[in-house]
Amino acid sequence: MQFKFHMPTKAYFGEGCVIQNGSELAGFGDKAIIVTGGKSARASGALDDVCSVLTQNHIDFTIFDKVENNPSTNTVKEGGNAARQAGARFVIGIGGGSPLDAAKAVAVLAVNDIEPLQLFENKFANKPLPIVAIPTTAGTGSEVTPYSILTRNDIKTKVSFGTPDTFPAVAFLDPRYTESQPAEVTVNTAIDALSHNIEGYLGKRSTPVSEILALEGIRLFGSCMESLHSRKFSSQDRADLLYASMLGGMVISHTGTTIVHGAGYNYTYFKGVPHGKANGYLMAEYLRFNYGHAREKIDRLLAVMGLTGIDEFDTFILSLTGKPPRLSDEEIAEYAAITMKQRSTASNIRTVQAADLENIYRNVQR
Amino acid sequence: MQFKFHMPTKAYFGEGCVIQNGSELAGFGDKAIIVTGGKSARASGALDDVCSVLTQNHIDFTIFDKVENNPSTNTVKEGGNAARQAGARFVIGIGGGSPLDAAKAVAVLAVNDIEPLQLFENKFANKPLPIVAIPTTAGTGSEVTPYSILTRNDIKTKVSFGTPDTFPAVAFLDPRYTESQPAEVTVNTAIDALSHNIEGYLGKRSTPVSEILALEGIRLFGSCMESLHSRKFSSQDRADLLYASMLGGMVISHTGTTIVHGAGYNYTYFKGVPHGKANGYLMAEYLRFNYGHAREKIDRLLAVMGLTGIDEFDTFILSLTGKPPRLSDEEIAEYAAITMKQRSTASNIRTVQAADLENIYRNVQR
Repeated sequence: MQFKFHMPTKAYFGEGCVIQNGSELAGFGDKAIIVTGGKSARASGALDDVCSVLTQNHIDFTIFDKVENNPSTNTVKEGGNAARQAGARFVIGIGGGSPLDAAKAVAVLAVNDIEPLQLFENKFANKPLPIVAIPTTAGTGSEVTPYSILTRNDIKTKVSFGTPDTFPAVAFLDPRYTESQPAEVTVNTAIDALSHNIEGYLGKRSTPVSEILALEGIRLFGSCMESLHSRKFSSQDRADLLYASMLGGMVISHTGTTIVHGAGYNYTYFKGVPHGKANGYLMAEYLRFNYGHAREKIDRLLAVMGLTGIDEFDTFILSLTGKPPRLSDEEIAEYAAITMKQRSTASNIRTVQAADLENIYRNVQR
Repeated sequence: MQFKFHMPTKAYFGEGCVIQNGSELAGFGDKAIIVTGGKSARASGALDDVCSVLTQNHIDFTIFDKVENNPSTNTVKEGGNAARQAGARFVIGIGGGSPLDAAKAVAVLAVNDIEPLQLFENKFANKPLPIVAIPTTAGTGSEVTPYSILTRNDIKTKVSFGTPDTFPAVAFLDPRYTESQPAEVTVNTAIDALSHNIEGYLGKRSTPVSEILALEGIRLFGSCMESLHSRKFSSQDRADLLYASMLGGMVISHTGTTIVHGAGYNYTYFKGVPHGKANGYLMAEYLRFNYGHAREKIDRLLAVMGLTGIDEFDTFILSLTGKPPRLSDEEIAEYAAITMKQRSTASNIRTVQAADLENIYRNVQR
């Protein structure tokens, strides 16, 4: 048994957690920049809560609300400039994965005069500003990971960076903030959280601690399957899904992801498919591909969800995602080649060749 | 669902983890003080490994090896002075719970000119020195908790202090370091780890994350029951027990302990009984006392250990600890009164009166 455990983010979970623990922000300095996508931060009530505790704690702030879905390196560059001009001492990300990931990049760029592409070198002369992360979706887990996933047009995909210094210092997880999301977003992001837990659980970098966290995350997803199917969510579902998402983040902080994420990015980059849904297309085939190499674990995770086998899992996830867009042979070859270049592909429990990925893409659209 | 998760210690687990990750120490400064009890640190090989990586990383060091079992406030005062005189920039604790807890107090006193009794006020003008913790027993979990438990002769018991700043920055858990301990110590410390996991699991401050960590720790103890009984330990047992101990530490960092610890301290303070064994005397009665208030959880933790009921648990633990020393009625009344003053008594799932504690002490010696 050899492993490392490191999860330095202080996480507050529960309704009202921002207001109740707002004094946590007082230690970070007298000027904040809030990084958001502009919509969910406002609709969820999170932005109001944050502004209120900042004011209460006499912290000045500016708002950078230009983060798009799947943020580009240009956007985070602009955010970094805004943070520097404002003299921000810390960064508060509010939103889904995109604003949270952008906030991490802004925290680095605010104090390091580098081009955004240098982010991926993961070496920063100056320690990033402290990051506070407040999710409004239950899927990314980014509030408890060091990872920032940005879209790189130069290599036509999404790529992550992250160091121990880009773990958020504090995360506030209030399940009510996820209520304003459309049901479609709740479903897609839940699939994302599930894929973090499953890929982490089965991946090569799985650790004893990450395994028990992942199984709990998978169990919680299982307990919400009926609600996900009916697209009606109780407060309990909201809390369970947000907690499952946090567990998924804690898991991938230790394990990274594998080929579901790597291959899924292509559906997002080239076809505009939301990230979680893109992962959903691939998950059953991913389990079939790995079954011979992780039979016991796959049986266990299916049992934990109350499922009898991969086929039942497949039917359920398909009922959530619908059929994937049809890919040409050329597209399949290109997507497989791009996925092979992702670092995370090497973490898959079964060694992966480009031909394997092509098969997975092909089987998915049968 | 309302909870906080905070576990900032970076933990490396596995054989050879000090040597493999010694460069972690380089960031803390050029002068260390090693705090130990003098025996287990040397016998285990841990001190050699630490000196070797310190030398490799050009870090000067002094050794303070005067920590006794259940360290007194006087000892940590002396350690604090030694650290200050040496100009130590960080503190490395090596040993069982006593040296690790003393190391935390030394880290505070080295940079705060206060009397040891002021430690318990938990407010320090200057941030404690960074702490590195290396356990040589599998029980305390102190390597991943902020707690330092010291013996206070003024109120005749052991009391803890700790703030988020007394979490070790880094912990190295090498199961081989526990091999040089007498079997008796392995058994007693394993019971301590079990009591952390069980008290945390059942206590009022239990959280969703601490529950799953605790159940895993309890399961691991269960998997070592035969070895504990025969007092023969494989490498796998050593690793499992050290991991269970680490999980117990992560658990009580969130939940604190309850009446097993509070009541057990009296056997240690007044009768010289080792800490884990003292807890062992009380655990079955503790489960009986709480059964009506936590039936489902107690059934579950027994099942996880492969046991059918509290009686079977009782018989097993008794086979490890032997009978407790007989207490007079006066002693029972005094011990109960002291336990009532422990803060942790309020965290017990069932409200506790002095008469309840007296009953528990009485039932234990039937």
